[in-house]
Amino acid sequence: MSKLTTSDLDDSISPSRLRIDGDRLTRRLVELGEIGGLEGGGCARLALTDEDKDGRNLVVAWMAELDLEIRIDTIGNVTATLPGREDLDPVMMGSHIDTVQTGGIYDGNLGVLTGLEVIETVKKSGFVPRRPLTVAFFTDEEGARFAPDMLGSLVYVGAMSAEEAHDIVAIDGARLGDELARIGYHGSSPCPGRAPYAFVELHIEQGPVLEREAIDIGVVTGVQGISWQQFTITGQSAHAGTTPMNLRHDPGYVAAAIAVFVRGLAEEFGEPQVGTVGAIDLHPNLINVVPSMATITVDLRNTDEQILQKAEVRLTEFCEEIAESEGVTIEAVSLARFEPVEFNEQLIDSVEHQAKVLGLSTRRMPSGAGHDAQMLSRVAPAAMVFVPSVNGISHNVAEFTKPADNVNGANVLLQVVLSLADQTDTDTTPRLNQSGKESS
Amino acid sequence: MSKLTTSDLDDSISPSRLRIDGDRLTRRLVELGEIGGLEGGGCARLALTDEDKDGRNLVVAWMAELDLEIRIDTIGNVTATLPGREDLDPVMMGSHIDTVQTGGIYDGNLGVLTGLEVIETVKKSGFVPRRPLTVAFFTDEEGARFAPDMLGSLVYVGAMSAEEAHDIVAIDGARLGDELARIGYHGSSPCPGRAPYAFVELHIEQGPVLEREAIDIGVVTGVQGISWQQFTITGQSAHAGTTPMNLRHDPGYVAAAIAVFVRGLAEEFGEPQVGTVGAIDLHPNLINVVPSMATITVDLRNTDEQILQKAEVRLTEFCEEIAESEGVTIEAVSLARFEPVEFNEQLIDSVEHQAKVLGLSTRRMPSGAGHDAQMLSRVAPAAMVFVPSVNGISHNVAEFTKPADNVNGANVLLQVVLSLADQTDTDTTPRLNQSGKESS
Repeated sequence: MSKLTTSDLDDSISPSRLRIDGDRLTRRLVELGEIGGLEGGGCARLALTDEDKDGRNLVVAWMAELDLEIRIDTIGNVTATLPGREDLDPVMMGSHIDTVQTGGIYDGNLGVLTGLEVIETVKKSGFVPRRPLTVAFFTDEEGARFAPDMLGSLVYVGAMSAEEAHDIVAIDGARLGDELARIGYHGSSPCPGRAPYAFVELHIEQGPVLEREAIDIGVVTGVQGISWQQFTITGQSAHAGTTPMNLRHDPGYVAAAIAVFVRGLAEEFGEPQVGTVGAIDLHPNLINVVPSMATITVDLRNTDEQILQKAEVRLTEFCEEIAESEGVTIEAVSLARFEPVEFNEQLIDSVEHQAKVLGLSTRRMPSGAGHDAQMLSRVAPAAMVFVPSVNGISHNVAEFTKPADNVNGANVLLQVVLSLADQTDTDTTPRLNQSGKESS
Repeated sequence: MSKLTTSDLDDSISPSRLRIDGDRLTRRLVELGEIGGLEGGGCARLALTDEDKDGRNLVVAWMAELDLEIRIDTIGNVTATLPGREDLDPVMMGSHIDTVQTGGIYDGNLGVLTGLEVIETVKKSGFVPRRPLTVAFFTDEEGARFAPDMLGSLVYVGAMSAEEAHDIVAIDGARLGDELARIGYHGSSPCPGRAPYAFVELHIEQGPVLEREAIDIGVVTGVQGISWQQFTITGQSAHAGTTPMNLRHDPGYVAAAIAVFVRGLAEEFGEPQVGTVGAIDLHPNLINVVPSMATITVDLRNTDEQILQKAEVRLTEFCEEIAESEGVTIEAVSLARFEPVEFNEQLIDSVEHQAKVLGLSTRRMPSGAGHDAQMLSRVAPAAMVFVPSVNGISHNVAEFTKPADNVNGANVLLQVVLSLADQTDTDTTPRLNQSGKESS
């Protein structure tokens, strides 16, 4: 494919020949990544911190340079819109620019900056799409400072009120509403926000599959259902030397047995079932004391709600059995439960189609992580484009996606968006029926 | 058995009819326990803190009231001696009065206060034994502030120099020698100290066996060998949602599998093998992140050195296999390794005999915990008397032993000590051959 720059364009613009500017995209990724920059290449911009403010200001400045209509809503989500030929609902792109404490520079940022890049490419081409194009960044997607995650998009779609969100307290004790005002991002645009005609989010895979299979583009079919539970196991503290094995009620052993069970369960169910025990805390956590208490977390995910429920039932049964046999009590608390999300079929097809037209290899896959697109899918047709993560690493300063892969993804995004932006409301695909549905 | 008070005694004293004063013993236990007292009934007197100083001063005051010969050595061990009829090596009793951070009032304290009670009972009876009687409290038995544990008795028997011990730094940064001087317990009596004729320590069981079997007195045959290892498992941090099970290198799973293996190994080997994973730390310990690293501790104990070694080998083999199959590295560090200690046969027999004469039920048993007596066994015949721990609880404010059990133990101690104190150096039991030996 030949590269087409804006200067090549004449009055008879062919949108399908438009290509984004990879150098500009890379420059912006690096420049934004330097705010809150960490040794080793990552960055730390926890939501609504000074670093987040600086990052927001930079992106807003880029939006302003393009003379876009910028709006800040009451939860701090920022949208920037390029008007279309008609006053129709916009095609929306976007993601987030907050990061975890030891984040990479691609997670979220790539979706926002490729959205901006799509708009700049279109605008500078002189081509005016039928529909407005909007790029958004949503507040606190990571949830690393204020729980829950995907908060800004949750409020955007009306699933939580801005007022309720304002009262959320950070891990550092700050109140969300106060922090929003402090950094100057308590806007006036109302929540819930305007439902777009469609929403498309580009994101790094954050897993190893695309790289391992040498695939250019992940065509995301939906988001795995997530079941997060915390188990508090209470037994009997005892001396590790003086207590015979048959007189023990050891929560540490029970925690370990549950972790081993979770692994076995995921292997028994097979892909796409995954199961993780990421956190274990023993009390008092001393070498020579049988613990009195243990807490562990279990993260189960599947794209199939029925199988996910079956996994939960099996885990509960195992806990009941081992509590009985070991003489401990196990209290389970659900920390999060999301049913699987299926993205819009026609958008999925469109992502796959546009990638193939661009000569890129594709693979359909679910997202194992949560993303703003799953919130937007509650009010509009939504889909996602994945690009490969080197070594599958994310939430880590070593997070990296090759520039060529970013450019590939951005061009797919561009073509999908241009195709959508040309559709009228009377097209054969009525919007409401297209909404991402939850599997039952 | 009728209770005999000192006022009943006439000139023809029968030592075998002497009994300790249970009320006085209980009063002292409570009074000492109030220093550093904790809500719920326990106490916190970490070695060489102000609380330890106050506790020492109280016990020394009681020793002084009895006009005993008090000596403080260069590591802060305190001995108090009642002279005998002849200038022979003393029969020594004792234990420690330092506690863990959330300690009970019996652990250690009971051995010191029953030793004092034995001496007071003998002294007030007017009977003068052939040998001197000594009661000691040893510095820093718990090791909770300064590692290693059993430090004072270790130095007393010459296995570590006082100078080396003085340079040990506490968990709070303080230097042991400085703290010793600060609280006024850097004495002048030399280390190693005088080897006694024999050493007998009364201690709470700190386990559930005696209570569960309704036994009055534990006749301690030795101390289990201890193997403490820490395993550091390094894998690959990964996203819990996006990383398929077969692409994981999960140190958290490996840690759990080792903990489950340790339990199975102890059950397979049977009593007296015990195995405990008391501490597990995952990094970063987050619900949705496959950990990059895990550390766990493994505590293995057995009275048989050969079987203990076999357990260590089996554990090492398991770690090698799972490191290979899971694609992680496992680094093992030995944190402590003590071979089993066997107490002196004739002293063991004497404890059992005197308990039976007193009409008490007995059970031979190893000690699962380390005690000062095992250090003293390096230089003198040594043995221990256990009394039941309610619910097997120790190192906990809920630690409790019934007053009647304390009195039983103290009377056994009294009779064993009086029997030993009557022996001459020409008795048929040459001392050096009696020393506790390590099993091979």
